[in-house]
Amino acid sequence: MKINKNFLDLEASYLFSTVNKKNREFIAKHQGADVIKISIGDVTKPICPIVIDAMHKAVDEMADEKTFRGYPPEQGYDFIREKILEWDYTKRGINLKLDEIFLSDGAKSDCGNIGDIFATDNTVAICDPVYPVYIDTNIMNGRKNNIIIMPCSAENGFLPELPKESDKVADIIYLCFPNNPTGAVASKAYLKKWVDYANAHHSLILFDSAYEAFITEPDIPKSIYEIEGAKSCAIELRSFSKTAGFTGLRCGYTVVPHELVFEGTELNALWLRRQSTKFNGVSYITQCAAAAIYSEEGQKQIQENLSYYRENARLIFEGVTQAGFKAFGGKNSPYVWLQIPQGFTSWSFFDELLEKCQVVGTPGSGFGKKGEGYLRLTGFGSRERTIEAIERIKKAFTK
Amino acid sequence: MKINKNFLDLEASYLFSTVNKKNREFIAKHQGADVIKISIGDVTKPICPIVIDAMHKAVDEMADEKTFRGYPPEQGYDFIREKILEWDYTKRGINLKLDEIFLSDGAKSDCGNIGDIFATDNTVAICDPVYPVYIDTNIMNGRKNNIIIMPCSAENGFLPELPKESDKVADIIYLCFPNNPTGAVASKAYLKKWVDYANAHHSLILFDSAYEAFITEPDIPKSIYEIEGAKSCAIELRSFSKTAGFTGLRCGYTVVPHELVFEGTELNALWLRRQSTKFNGVSYITQCAAAAIYSEEGQKQIQENLSYYRENARLIFEGVTQAGFKAFGGKNSPYVWLQIPQGFTSWSFFDELLEKCQVVGTPGSGFGKKGEGYLRLTGFGSRERTIEAIERIKKAFTK
Repeated sequence: MKINKNFLDLEASYLFSTVNKKNREFIAKHQGADVIKISIGDVTKPICPIVIDAMHKAVDEMADEKTFRGYPPEQGYDFIREKILEWDYTKRGINLKLDEIFLSDGAKSDCGNIGDIFATDNTVAICDPVYPVYIDTNIMNGRKNNIIIMPCSAENGFLPELPKESDKVADIIYLCFPNNPTGAVASKAYLKKWVDYANAHHSLILFDSAYEAFITEPDIPKSIYEIEGAKSCAIELRSFSKTAGFTGLRCGYTVVPHELVFEGTELNALWLRRQSTKFNGVSYITQCAAAAIYSEEGQKQIQENLSYYRENARLIFEGVTQAGFKAFGGKNSPYVWLQIPQGFTSWSFFDELLEKCQVVGTPGSGFGKKGEGYLRLTGFGSRERTIEAIERIKKAFTK
Repeated sequence: MKINKNFLDLEASYLFSTVNKKNREFIAKHQGADVIKISIGDVTKPICPIVIDAMHKAVDEMADEKTFRGYPPEQGYDFIREKILEWDYTKRGINLKLDEIFLSDGAKSDCGNIGDIFATDNTVAICDPVYPVYIDTNIMNGRKNNIIIMPCSAENGFLPELPKESDKVADIIYLCFPNNPTGAVASKAYLKKWVDYANAHHSLILFDSAYEAFITEPDIPKSIYEIEGAKSCAIELRSFSKTAGFTGLRCGYTVVPHELVFEGTELNALWLRRQSTKFNGVSYITQCAAAAIYSEEGQKQIQENLSYYRENARLIFEGVTQAGFKAFGGKNSPYVWLQIPQGFTSWSFFDELLEKCQVVGTPGSGFGKKGEGYLRLTGFGSRERTIEAIERIKKAFTK
């Protein structure tokens, strides 16, 4: 039996384990040190009451023969897909069909599994810095030598540039806005350029909008389908993780419009076949939980948590700016991308911050070579601790 | 952008949709017809009380900041993996390590996704008739021309024969016992032959024991690891779907022992990398649900449902035998594999049974060419309706 040797091309990532190890070592060395982590990418606020009620009700249904549900449809129950269609798309003027929405156990699964339906010899364009799953899953699929890195830096506002006409065509383009880790957002005009490029070159955009719920400015698109022409060139990946705090409940969805036809084949049909063969649907209880956020009251409740995280991010951005740092993001996004002072690397500044302030961030270099020189801070902590972290940073670094 | 053309090699399966269509047409033609389905492969009994209580408690924990849980570990929480280790393995004399157990959203996902870690050019041995996922996922992965079909029939007791020394080596061997669809079970002596073959040829066995909970006879192995030498040649796939009625809750697990070393690489490390990159763990609520079955009371409660299904299967087997049919399975299994009378195909007998008895089975030919001439009946219906179906069959067919 031969293994898939592409796995041997993967680089081991010790980012978060090294962060945790350094943190533990620091605490061991400094007994009683009060370390604050503003590095976490996971939500911390509990699930909102309307969702809790929906789950209790769903659990009770599973206890009764008359309302018990067995295997769910692989693409999700109609009741949740209808809500998604109405609230996330129709209300924003986007027309989609029910069978273009595929519910799943999370955007990370979809983001990895979607690669199953593409040929190995596609060229893939991926940003740097980036959510490592895009890179790793393509390496697993044998595309190590077909990856085009799109550098993102302060110079281009962390918005990757389109390939030049003389460059190799990017067959598959990964875009994520609001961006993890940089916090950058994309305007309609900017995304239109990518949509036009994709349609002109018969390329596919994989649009990751896991953080769309953080957008508050009305002119910033939440969906790629707000851009004319996107339905014939883009798949959209969505998540309930950050939107409704579902990281522990596992739910996301992927939109695959029928207009996506490559080599005479609808990607919708391929993804349906993939999902109905290798996936067996989402827990009924989780589907009921997701449906509960699509009501006036549900939206109000999730916005309370979202506002809380947004305000944390705003406070971090404001605070580090006052302390004399240059920073990006922190608006329409839970992430602040801190440019670290000259003379430091991402890791040496991580150490400096831990030593001087007992504050933990995430070294930008963990997200790719172009992340070197940055630190990612997040708004997912508690308000009190976030403020305390900012005060310490201001005290230590303000000149 | 080029698609994965292997998907075009997949045969569309209309098995269950055709069964449902014929059923609907029959009802439309015969107003008020009282059709009984003993064809279903899904559980029908509600989730047992101890699991319901555990889920309510878990839901409440998600409502409280102090007990809220975000992203679960990709391989499952220790609390559930420790229970699995103890109850499913240690108690049966099998020693495994905690990090050899990977919790997932179901055996179907694992069964499909596990193919990611194998090279495309492996030769794969698969039974006929069979659970179609084995075939389809290998075709998707480009192994269409590398599949060795192992015919299973009454002649070999539905136990596939080992490849001869002159045959091509089977690199990956799919085995499922108790079997879906035939209901066949495998003895230790029989499985030992496969384990020896695999170790001798450095092959890998994928052992699907989704139906192990139906085994009541003590000498029939529930796990492949009850066979000496299996840890160096077998991955085991397990499911809570039939064991505890979790088809609607989504949970299973896969065991990948460290002894599985191919081309110098531990499969455990590859699977961990695959899962931590393309999967984000199982809902906390589902994990608590699964943990609840591993207690004296939990085992007692799930056995009540399992006994109910077992007794249905036994009644079907006994009834169709009394009616003059030859049948297999129905013991240590929820499935009865009915040999249909001469002069009928699987589909024409399906029609005959529907017309004469208003009873629905699943045509065996839907599970592969060698399933022709059989019909799969299942014990997952209600007792009352199952008995009614048997009475009708006896009345119509007893000579």
